Amino acid sequence: MNPNNPILKHHISSQFNEDLVDVNTKFMTMGGLVEQQVANAIHALLDTNANLAIDVQFQDNTVNQFERDIDEALTLILARRHPAAIDLRMVIAMSKANTDLERIGDEAAKIARIAQTLCEEGESPRGYMETRHIGNQVRVMIHDSLDAFARVDAEQALKVLLADADIDREYQSATRTLMTYMIEDPKHISRVINVMWVLRALERIGDHARNIAEQVIYMAKGLDVRHTSVEEIEIKVQQSNTPR
Amino acid sequence: MNPNNPILKHHISSQFNEDLVDVNTKFMTMGGLVEQQVANAIHALLDTNANLAIDVQFQDNTVNQFERDIDEALTLILARRHPAAIDLRMVIAMSKANTDLERIGDEAAKIARIAQTLCEEGESPRGYMETRHIGNQVRVMIHDSLDAFARVDAEQALKVLLADADIDREYQSATRTLMTYMIEDPKHISRVINVMWVLRALERIGDHARNIAEQVIYMAKGLDVRHTSVEEIEIKVQQSNTPR
Repeated sequence: MNPNNPILKHHISSQFNEDLVDVNTKFMTMGGLVEQQVANAIHALLDTNANLAIDVQFQDNTVNQFERDIDEALTLILARRHPAAIDLRMVIAMSKANTDLERIGDEAAKIARIAQTLCEEGESPRGYMETRHIGNQVRVMIHDSLDAFARVDAEQALKVLLADADIDREYQSATRTLMTYMIEDPKHISRVINVMWVLRALERIGDHARNIAEQVIYMAKGLDVRHTSVEEIEIKVQQSNTPR
Repeated sequence: MNPNNPILKHHISSQFNEDLVDVNTKFMTMGGLVEQQVANAIHALLDTNANLAIDVQFQDNTVNQFERDIDEALTLILARRHPAAIDLRMVIAMSKANTDLERIGDEAAKIARIAQTLCEEGESPRGYMETRHIGNQVRVMIHDSLDAFARVDAEQALKVLLADADIDREYQSATRTLMTYMIEDPKHISRVINVMWVLRALERIGDHARNIAEQVIYMAKGLDVRHTSVEEIEIKVQQSNTPR
């Protein structure tokens, strides 16, 4: 049980509390696994490690099983415990974030599949520097969004939203660079396109981490901040901190 | 109110029934809008209609607002009505499918953005035949998955899952064709890559329609068929139809 999570301490019914703690532990374990999958997929690509690439694709089944288990546990909590207020928000936020974690796992498996292809072809193509750089940023985003979820920390979630805007910019710039490589050296087009798919997958992972961060803000503050600019979200979160 | 939806007829509490009917109507209206957005985005691209492309991007705000409204309505139903059994499954399925509809809207807006760029550049590039073909298939998938949702029809949902496997194959083949165009004619690389992004968006839309179909099976049968092969799903659905 996480001593920093304010939601998991206040229940009178011990069975209800136990159910919430259990599903929360599962969610955090899945989060750790998904984080590792992304790290391994990037390593497999950059170090041309085909075995690691195969392992990541295989482990995606475990991620999928976590998704099913967590949704089942959440449905049981809704059916039996009728959570209200912040408990209900936690269940809803976890249900949404669960989908995002599974999708991050899918993107990691996609990167691993491409890594495997590129390993077999040998010779490392252009665009790896960009991949390493954006890959590192995205890993930090996943870590921070999960940490914010564990501590129900809206301020840290805000930082994740800011980081996502950075990644979108760097992704655009990296895509332009790769386009130049292709035009200069058309015979390596298919290899460079593969690297482009990897960058796209990393950008999508950043989006999913942002979605998780938005769910943290919903859970902590009851604010639905989807489709809202980061500036507006900052103001809303600050207002909700000020006692009225 | 939809007379074909078996869930919306059996409640003793008229207020509960009204809440479910209301959110169901909202969901179906959003579905119709999203379907139209995809159709318009494809038309904007193929008929080089820049105004339509701009309109689709603008309308994405309406889709986003629907997503927020539906999730809010579902949360209120959970908090006030404590739905059980098939009612609870409907609420959960709609919450998940709501996310997928919004993402389909995002992909339509992405296609429209690319359409706008390609309109401004003039001259229609290669790969439009493939786009038209896959675009039509994807539109049918969205329509059928929403229809299956409206009628809580697991059999029709199964057909959507089968259609998605087709689209994945055609997407792979179209991507290979585009790759050949690029290698043959490197000076149009950036235009062809834009068409590739469109195909990718269409393939993602197909995935989201499949997710909605999976939620229909969950709602109708209580079976979680995510990450399961279509053959296995067919058997499971048939078994659930046979009285034991």
